[in-house]
Amino acid sequence: MAKQNAQPPKGTRDFLPAYVRQRQYAISIIRQVYESYGFEPLETPTLERLEALSGKYGEEGDQLMFKVLLRGQPLVTGIEQAAVLLQQPGAVIEGRSGKTVPGAPALLADLGLRYDLTVPLARAYAAHQAELPPIFKRYQIQPVWRADTPGKGRYREFYQCDVDVVGSTSLLVEAEVASAAVECVERLGFSDFTVRLNHRGLLRAVVERAGLGPQQEVDAITAIDKLDKVGKDGVDRELAERGVAEAGRRALLELLESGADLDGVARFLAGHTEGEQALAELRRMLELSQGTAAGARIRFDIALARGLGYYTGCIFELASPKFGGSLGGGGRYDNLIGLFLGRQVPACGFSLGFERLLLLMDEGGMFPADLAALDVLLGATSEDGAGELLVAARELRALGLRVSLLPKAEKPGKLRKTAEERQARHAVWLESGRFQLWTRDGDVSMRDLERAALLEKLQGEPA
Amino acid sequence: MAKQNAQPPKGTRDFLPAYVRQRQYAISIIRQVYESYGFEPLETPTLERLEALSGKYGEEGDQLMFKVLLRGQPLVTGIEQAAVLLQQPGAVIEGRSGKTVPGAPALLADLGLRYDLTVPLARAYAAHQAELPPIFKRYQIQPVWRADTPGKGRYREFYQCDVDVVGSTSLLVEAEVASAAVECVERLGFSDFTVRLNHRGLLRAVVERAGLGPQQEVDAITAIDKLDKVGKDGVDRELAERGVAEAGRRALLELLESGADLDGVARFLAGHTEGEQALAELRRMLELSQGTAAGARIRFDIALARGLGYYTGCIFELASPKFGGSLGGGGRYDNLIGLFLGRQVPACGFSLGFERLLLLMDEGGMFPADLAALDVLLGATSEDGAGELLVAARELRALGLRVSLLPKAEKPGKLRKTAEERQARHAVWLESGRFQLWTRDGDVSMRDLERAALLEKLQGEPA
Repeated sequence: MAKQNAQPPKGTRDFLPAYVRQRQYAISIIRQVYESYGFEPLETPTLERLEALSGKYGEEGDQLMFKVLLRGQPLVTGIEQAAVLLQQPGAVIEGRSGKTVPGAPALLADLGLRYDLTVPLARAYAAHQAELPPIFKRYQIQPVWRADTPGKGRYREFYQCDVDVVGSTSLLVEAEVASAAVECVERLGFSDFTVRLNHRGLLRAVVERAGLGPQQEVDAITAIDKLDKVGKDGVDRELAERGVAEAGRRALLELLESGADLDGVARFLAGHTEGEQALAELRRMLELSQGTAAGARIRFDIALARGLGYYTGCIFELASPKFGGSLGGGGRYDNLIGLFLGRQVPACGFSLGFERLLLLMDEGGMFPADLAALDVLLGATSEDGAGELLVAARELRALGLRVSLLPKAEKPGKLRKTAEERQARHAVWLESGRFQLWTRDGDVSMRDLERAALLEKLQGEPA
Repeated sequence: MAKQNAQPPKGTRDFLPAYVRQRQYAISIIRQVYESYGFEPLETPTLERLEALSGKYGEEGDQLMFKVLLRGQPLVTGIEQAAVLLQQPGAVIEGRSGKTVPGAPALLADLGLRYDLTVPLARAYAAHQAELPPIFKRYQIQPVWRADTPGKGRYREFYQCDVDVVGSTSLLVEAEVASAAVECVERLGFSDFTVRLNHRGLLRAVVERAGLGPQQEVDAITAIDKLDKVGKDGVDRELAERGVAEAGRRALLELLESGADLDGVARFLAGHTEGEQALAELRRMLELSQGTAAGARIRFDIALARGLGYYTGCIFELASPKFGGSLGGGGRYDNLIGLFLGRQVPACGFSLGFERLLLLMDEGGMFPADLAALDVLLGATSEDGAGELLVAARELRALGLRVSLLPKAEKPGKLRKTAEERQARHAVWLESGRFQLWTRDGDVSMRDLERAALLEKLQGEPA
């Protein structure tokens, strides 16, 4: 038989049973924490209309988006298709036969694969607003797709685990969202991480006070974001390369050199209305967080920028020295949800770095050992007694036991080995019309049991 | 603000919280049953290489497949792209400027969205065979995509819940798979359904014995498949339209008229080796099933055809008069898995009609009422005391309670109303520095509690 290529597409993965169980374990903990905060589950389609996705993630996002070909579009196009696809209205296509067709612009694709969970939330919130509460607290755990260059911990299909609160400007929302994120990561077994806190309004004010123009804001914040990695000299070089004048660079670096605690930044921003408003929100957020799971971990960090997309207020990030990077991040974004609704709707959310967390948990041996546990591997040493095996399987399952029936006759040694491989607590097999019971721990092995005796023996086993 | 279209793509759906909870409920039951049978979870990527999907689902499948545009392909193409896309090697494209480019065939798309869970299983099994047991029992619960015409219960994105056993020819596999399927549907609350059983080898033999050529096999089976709907006269007309000669039609209809129990079919097939082999397997399957959950429901049905794709042996289907159709189906397919491996690998599986089951459960009021239950809606009548609220939320959650904190001050009446809407058992609010407790059942409402007293009151509440 000819053999076809069996590899999954570049940057995607098959999840084998042991790994699915690890993922299910992590997801069930995250879901429990989110539910305990009163977040409600939302799921949105994998496909979105391209016009709903386009322009929301910047130029890079548009490029990295997986786009779906219009249905009915032939994979290999002929002269008519080529003409339709041709951008230049005045162009003419001449086929081999001499037939000519005028060209006209047309779209090849109308749908795209979900790029994150935030734009779909905004769209779905607008579509279903009448059915949703005025303050909508939702969690969403689904895969997203980006045609990025694959690397360690970076895939083209990966899960996001988001919480968002839509419809409230209260800082209680920021405090609850950060607390839920911290609790998820703690419950997954991490202890060595902090919550970095900053404010987009504060960053804007700092940049403005340093004398930079609004068009340099993005450059400046991107440079400051690298402080941890490249140091102050590096930031200075980066700012210079991006065309920030020396006076501005000096002002920014002085601020960073000052230690840049809240009081230092307050002195730097004295009299700047928007900046002082952001400072007040940061102080309030730190104060509120004291009563939450984030309290002991949260600290102001002027160098946190969190990309530059849609954030408008507080931004925060879980940072772990172990990974040298972020375990997830979030913040307030008051201008995105409204795009589909035609009016401003405040929102604040957090996205866990799920694939990174899994990678760290795997490397750190942080998963329970018995996730794959089976209670009984059930088999027989000959093909006879298949009916008896099926009845035994049914009755053992009725006790709440997980029972895998081996459809092939095997020798006792092979059955025990298979049971060990499957992490089964017991191997049970039919041999000469009686059941033989072997237990991994070795303390209840028994021979030649009737089915009733076997059931009695395994009754009350923890399921 | 301008408003963007907020609808999800045609044939896809947003799942709002109450519905996600119903889906989660059904999935958790199905997963429990599959796990109790020792099936292990597998997940495969949403995207597959088009060449892995193509040609596996027939012409219709190729048409209904969602295909993903090559990355970097511009959405609107210019003259160079049009030329590349042009199928006819001799063709020439002339742009408005007079520039000409020779045409050459090229693919527009290289990836497709998963169309079912069986071809991905075959591919993944081949890719990871060294890491998988020789007999691999897996379950898979994931969405699939088909660009079909949407209708009631029919969507372009829908879930499949499959079990398959790869690597064994034993009929114990058929018996276990059918039993697991029955148990899932029973545990979801259905009682009024049967298991129809037939065999592809039997159908082939019947068609052959009726004197039809192999090229008429598909037509004949398709016609027989409609017996329930159109009656014998309808089947006769259908066979005639498909060009089956009268002698063949009469032989087939006589068989169907005979009642077509196993003995009747045995007489019809007497001496047909392949047919008698299939009959023996059917008798054995019925016998083995007596000890399983399928025992009381399973019956031979000559009119079951189960489409015509890849099945090779026993086929079965859960049929409910309530829905007038299938709740799921499966069977043995010994030639598909090997496509990616280059040698034959036997397999047998079942796919539940998940979306139909959900629809019926919703219509029949079969979901538990308290899936959305929240324990405490926590709020305040003024903006003061936000810190106290956060601490109370944390401590209540530490008791195992699900607590939703309302970030906006509200009057007591509004708080109670919101609690009722969220199906919360309690509303708790801070008013003048003390906690007020209201209970939906009305029996533990209390006023002016300190936080410690509140906690004591709610301790031991079922979570």
